[in-house]
Amino acid sequence: MSTEQEHPQKAFGWAARDSSGVLSPFNFSRRETGEKDVTFRVLYCGVCHSDLHMVKNEWGFSTYPLVPGHEIVGEVTEVGSNVQKYKVGDRVGVGYMVGACRSCDSCTDHLENYCPKQILTSGAKYYDGTTTYGGYSDIMVADEHFIVRIPDNLPLDAAAPLLCAGITTYSPLRYFGLDKPGMHVGVVGLGGLGHVAVKFAKAMGVKVTVISTSSNKKEEAVDHLGADSFLVSRDQDQMQAAIGTMDGIIDTVSAQHPLLPLIGLLKTNGKLVMVGAPEKPLELPVFPLLAGRKMVAGSSIGGIKETQEMIDFAAKHNITADIEVIPIDYLNTAIERLVKADVRYRFVIDIGNTLKASP
Amino acid sequence: MSTEQEHPQKAFGWAARDSSGVLSPFNFSRRETGEKDVTFRVLYCGVCHSDLHMVKNEWGFSTYPLVPGHEIVGEVTEVGSNVQKYKVGDRVGVGYMVGACRSCDSCTDHLENYCPKQILTSGAKYYDGTTTYGGYSDIMVADEHFIVRIPDNLPLDAAAPLLCAGITTYSPLRYFGLDKPGMHVGVVGLGGLGHVAVKFAKAMGVKVTVISTSSNKKEEAVDHLGADSFLVSRDQDQMQAAIGTMDGIIDTVSAQHPLLPLIGLLKTNGKLVMVGAPEKPLELPVFPLLAGRKMVAGSSIGGIKETQEMIDFAAKHNITADIEVIPIDYLNTAIERLVKADVRYRFVIDIGNTLKASP
Repeated sequence: MSTEQEHPQKAFGWAARDSSGVLSPFNFSRRETGEKDVTFRVLYCGVCHSDLHMVKNEWGFSTYPLVPGHEIVGEVTEVGSNVQKYKVGDRVGVGYMVGACRSCDSCTDHLENYCPKQILTSGAKYYDGTTTYGGYSDIMVADEHFIVRIPDNLPLDAAAPLLCAGITTYSPLRYFGLDKPGMHVGVVGLGGLGHVAVKFAKAMGVKVTVISTSSNKKEEAVDHLGADSFLVSRDQDQMQAAIGTMDGIIDTVSAQHPLLPLIGLLKTNGKLVMVGAPEKPLELPVFPLLAGRKMVAGSSIGGIKETQEMIDFAAKHNITADIEVIPIDYLNTAIERLVKADVRYRFVIDIGNTLKASP
Repeated sequence: MSTEQEHPQKAFGWAARDSSGVLSPFNFSRRETGEKDVTFRVLYCGVCHSDLHMVKNEWGFSTYPLVPGHEIVGEVTEVGSNVQKYKVGDRVGVGYMVGACRSCDSCTDHLENYCPKQILTSGAKYYDGTTTYGGYSDIMVADEHFIVRIPDNLPLDAAAPLLCAGITTYSPLRYFGLDKPGMHVGVVGLGGLGHVAVKFAKAMGVKVTVISTSSNKKEEAVDHLGADSFLVSRDQDQMQAAIGTMDGIIDTVSAQHPLLPLIGLLKTNGKLVMVGAPEKPLELPVFPLLAGRKMVAGSSIGGIKETQEMIDFAAKHNITADIEVIPIDYLNTAIERLVKADVRYRFVIDIGNTLKASP
């Protein structure tokens, strides 16, 4: 059955049809609102760098047509008979996942993001065998367990990226204990993830140093985002002076890059946490790890419970992403600009006002 | 001044004179017993794999003549006027370090092993500018802070390797929380470090799987050392079946080896701890770290306080190393055998009975 007819709810969005990187309008359908489901009108959706990887099949498991988008916010239009937490009109969001087994060790531990059977919001197979389509679309249906409430004081557009970029940086700061006032944390790369990492770390009372290959973003990092200092990773003198000064580093860079200089910045027991995903293996020098009981770890988004906690923390501290709101027609241009990292710091598609199904 | 005359106490040992890997008798001297110093007659000294690296200058910072040995045990013959904890006749040992700054964050935290100014037991410069000489020698002088007491129930010969191999594996089991009864820990490589790691982990109540490239040591690991299971890393089926089953892995291998299969064995939040030191960087695949919030960490020996705790734990649980006691004349042969990993599991030199200064 065609994707347009397999479900009863008509849906409209933009999809990639192949790995060219170009998206175009796409008619499809969504399941009816099940008894545990929440259906919402999508108002905004962030454009994450991993959408780009998926659109171009750079991770090798994309299927087409692919409707990306996992920083999805909107307003509830219908709830199932067994839905407990949400009602029509609520401001809600969906992030990277729409399903998980709910019974494995990770799920039991509120870490659905590490469940081997997690179902991604876009390009995965749902329980009924149909493909999941992401938030570059007019409506969304998801089990209420995977729905997050957006507090009233957060603007929906600038809150959308928190559902991926936000939780991806908040979660490791918490889990790896890099959230203690007075600690010193480095943030590598000042993009969609990095700029939110700076805001969260600062709100936790941590001293933040942004580490970047060039000094281009120094003023922005310090004056605008509130970083305490800025380190140009290509400047040997600056790097040398900063050796052994950091409790941890959140590394948001997904391009190939050397780990040795970053490991050097860590104190004894320091933690280098990768949240970007370089395609090829990086070089890991073991001696420098041994010499200071240091670690290189990975962290991927966060569980639903912690995502809600993160959003509530963001609301309390007035943290949102810095965004450039775009109409859906600008999407392909935005993707081209994203390839060049030409955005400060996240494109967010104004779905509610600009995505209209053709009559 | 010659090394034979720079200090008042005559000493005799075996030294490497160059990177050939061959050692020979060597007359030198040790400082007089300072007010905080303990002098002891060396009775046994373990032959650690890192002695081999140092003798052959494989880490690039060896100086000659080099008297190796940092698993040193013996009996106190003299104590300084300000020594508090030891008296003549006590059974004591010295491990990897004989000095540290005692004031940095690491030292304050009882982690002298991560002090940037730590002074190694062999081949380093002591405070007075003279070279430190290790335990392949008849007497030893060290500040009491770096002396460890060997409990009476531990045989001195089989306890000697605990001062390096023991603490190197005990410390990460504790620090990384891999010491909880019911946990499952892998031990990669069944050599000097690995076989002690198995014993400590078992004594902590942990389920232990030995991971090795061949099945040669399976019977030994399970029947003799008490490992719960054995995994041949080259057997794809065995490795596949063990995916996601381990809370942590202690990796003792210092040769180049792939990390990806080991990372795969870890559960969510699993920890791969390197205690061997491969010379060249290893390949680190980042995606598998992200997908389970896993980490690759390093750990190097342990602090003095924890070394004493480890020795006391070993005494309580009757843990010693499996050793082959050798006379000093056998040393060069032992080193050749060590290169081929032909020892189960540690050579220990019988210094007391076989090392005699020429008249």
